[in-house]
Amino acid sequence: MRTISGQSVAVDKAGHRHFMLKEIYEQPTVLSDCLRHYSDGTAVTIREGELDFAQTDRLILVACGTAHYACLVAKYWFEQLAGLPCDVDIASEFRYREPPVSDRATALFVSQSGETADTLAALRYARDKAARIVSVVNVPESSIARDSDLALPILAGVEVGVASTKAFMNQLGALAHLAILAARQRGRIDSAREAELLGTLRSLPGLINQALALEPQIEAQTRRLAEAQSVLFLGRGAMFPMALEGALKLKEISYIHAEGYASGELKHGPIALVDKSVPVVVLAPRDGLFDKTVSNMQEVMAREGRVWLVTDAEGGRLAGDGVWHRLVMPTVDPVFAPMLYAVPAQLIAYHTALHKGTDVDQPRNLAKSVTVE
Amino acid sequence: MRTISGQSVAVDKAGHRHFMLKEIYEQPTVLSDCLRHYSDGTAVTIREGELDFAQTDRLILVACGTAHYACLVAKYWFEQLAGLPCDVDIASEFRYREPPVSDRATALFVSQSGETADTLAALRYARDKAARIVSVVNVPESSIARDSDLALPILAGVEVGVASTKAFMNQLGALAHLAILAARQRGRIDSAREAELLGTLRSLPGLINQALALEPQIEAQTRRLAEAQSVLFLGRGAMFPMALEGALKLKEISYIHAEGYASGELKHGPIALVDKSVPVVVLAPRDGLFDKTVSNMQEVMAREGRVWLVTDAEGGRLAGDGVWHRLVMPTVDPVFAPMLYAVPAQLIAYHTALHKGTDVDQPRNLAKSVTVE
Repeated sequence: MRTISGQSVAVDKAGHRHFMLKEIYEQPTVLSDCLRHYSDGTAVTIREGELDFAQTDRLILVACGTAHYACLVAKYWFEQLAGLPCDVDIASEFRYREPPVSDRATALFVSQSGETADTLAALRYARDKAARIVSVVNVPESSIARDSDLALPILAGVEVGVASTKAFMNQLGALAHLAILAARQRGRIDSAREAELLGTLRSLPGLINQALALEPQIEAQTRRLAEAQSVLFLGRGAMFPMALEGALKLKEISYIHAEGYASGELKHGPIALVDKSVPVVVLAPRDGLFDKTVSNMQEVMAREGRVWLVTDAEGGRLAGDGVWHRLVMPTVDPVFAPMLYAVPAQLIAYHTALHKGTDVDQPRNLAKSVTVE
Repeated sequence: MRTISGQSVAVDKAGHRHFMLKEIYEQPTVLSDCLRHYSDGTAVTIREGELDFAQTDRLILVACGTAHYACLVAKYWFEQLAGLPCDVDIASEFRYREPPVSDRATALFVSQSGETADTLAALRYARDKAARIVSVVNVPESSIARDSDLALPILAGVEVGVASTKAFMNQLGALAHLAILAARQRGRIDSAREAELLGTLRSLPGLINQALALEPQIEAQTRRLAEAQSVLFLGRGAMFPMALEGALKLKEISYIHAEGYASGELKHGPIALVDKSVPVVVLAPRDGLFDKTVSNMQEVMAREGRVWLVTDAEGGRLAGDGVWHRLVMPTVDPVFAPMLYAVPAQLIAYHTALHKGTDVDQPRNLAKSVTVE
């Protein structure tokens, strides 16, 4: 396996206590870079000849870990904006499962390093089967990029913290542009709607800055979270993969057993865990699914569960009574809300880990790039 | 919502301490009933006119909780035996996500009660879109059965224990026959192979009886498991959903935070949890993926993690050194191994819960049928 040159560039913490925190704070900047790269503000600028989603009957998204959760978020975008059916798979399962791949499918692989062993093997399995191989990577000279028909850089810059933050954000940024492109090519949106969606994306760096300003409040609220043995994260729709990602971040750096669930699955098992000792973080902007999630949240509270509601002003007004913690986020168009809600998920994990005194940038047992199987 | 007459039939524990244990022990019998219902021993006896998988371009499987994991197992069968691409979704996500559904797709809904609210709503969403609506239910007069073009009974009898055991087994039994039928209709297997696969299924009740004979060993081995705050379950391929199911069972009745993972994802986050205090149950018959799983298991042991290896004689011989517990299961054809490995997953949960003194048949916060959203 080659050395990745980008990873050896000298980097420092720029005054932050940890690389992870520095990278969390870089997100408005690197996301802006990504947005400028993929659109001119009114249209997606990926060249039409390079990618034709109108000829694609299915999108297959494959990745590991955090990148897999970025794919799960993107599935909601591709299906809802572009009406393009998606399969999302874990790379280590996809490659050995050897699933049927249509010759009209586009296969898309997401990896920060571009060297993730299972993702690369999954790409090679799909190579002769799918119509086109696309990758979304942070290292453009990586193996996964080289083996793709089209490699889209995420432009996040070098990420040092083992727990991915800004790379996840920019994976979502690149995937959002692909979904908008697909929607236009498939005749699902007109150019006015395209410009509107891109405008929403352009508002995100500013909103992320506002979310970052909540850090002192998150620092205070995580003090008690750090005492928990177990934490559940709940979300619906595109917030479901964000619940998975929030739980993964917390698990990776604080070693607290956190698990993400689709809110609707709560009653089918995990609610048995709930008592005073198991905090439940609910990621729920005020959107079309809000009332359903609030109803799940109330079941948790009826069982003396402590709910940390992460929502917007309207959601907080409607459902904030009786919760353990409430974090009021800036209001954002629901379609791209997962990108904004990544920020509190990251800061919750970061400050919980600080309270616990774990090694945030080098968590035990983990490596930055998993280049072996 | 109607009352389900089947659930009010008088049942007793037939000498067992709990309904759950009684139902675990009923599995060889009820599975035999299911197998006899769906095949004559050499061919699947579902009438061709009722279901044509040759005309289906995709199978959509939707369910909640344990039934959702049965669908995830079945995905491996449909894809590998029949080359039929499958989408599996959680009912509460599917219904609100409103995904594209092809008019050549078959949509299949699995529910023990046939009254699961989210599954019923998902079925109604798919009704006018998919070519055909099929359901797999335990209660033939249920709402889900009535709203289907074809309702396949699982013939498990009344299930009283809140944690599903024999219904899960027979959901797998019915789905296995559907996958074999699909494989034949799509020209992927000949009648000799069909008879061979059905023969393997017919051997399962006997093998399940052998697995049940391991109960005293499981009872002893769970004594220390009951002290854990967190447990991980690992599996690859069709054993991955069994890891999810094993974790769910343990969570539901022992209130231990158990989580299932695809073995290949271990290094992408959850291994950070691993230390002496977090037992890792590895479901790994000696199959084509065994060596990969053993390598993941060794990473756990290198970090002082305690591995409980559930495998067969050959697997135990090859990889049993240094594990914390080893449970040697009967050898089974890998294709239907998930059905056999359901038994130790159930018994591990049951005996751990007994050691903890929880209410096995009526775990806190849970209801048998989730007929509200």
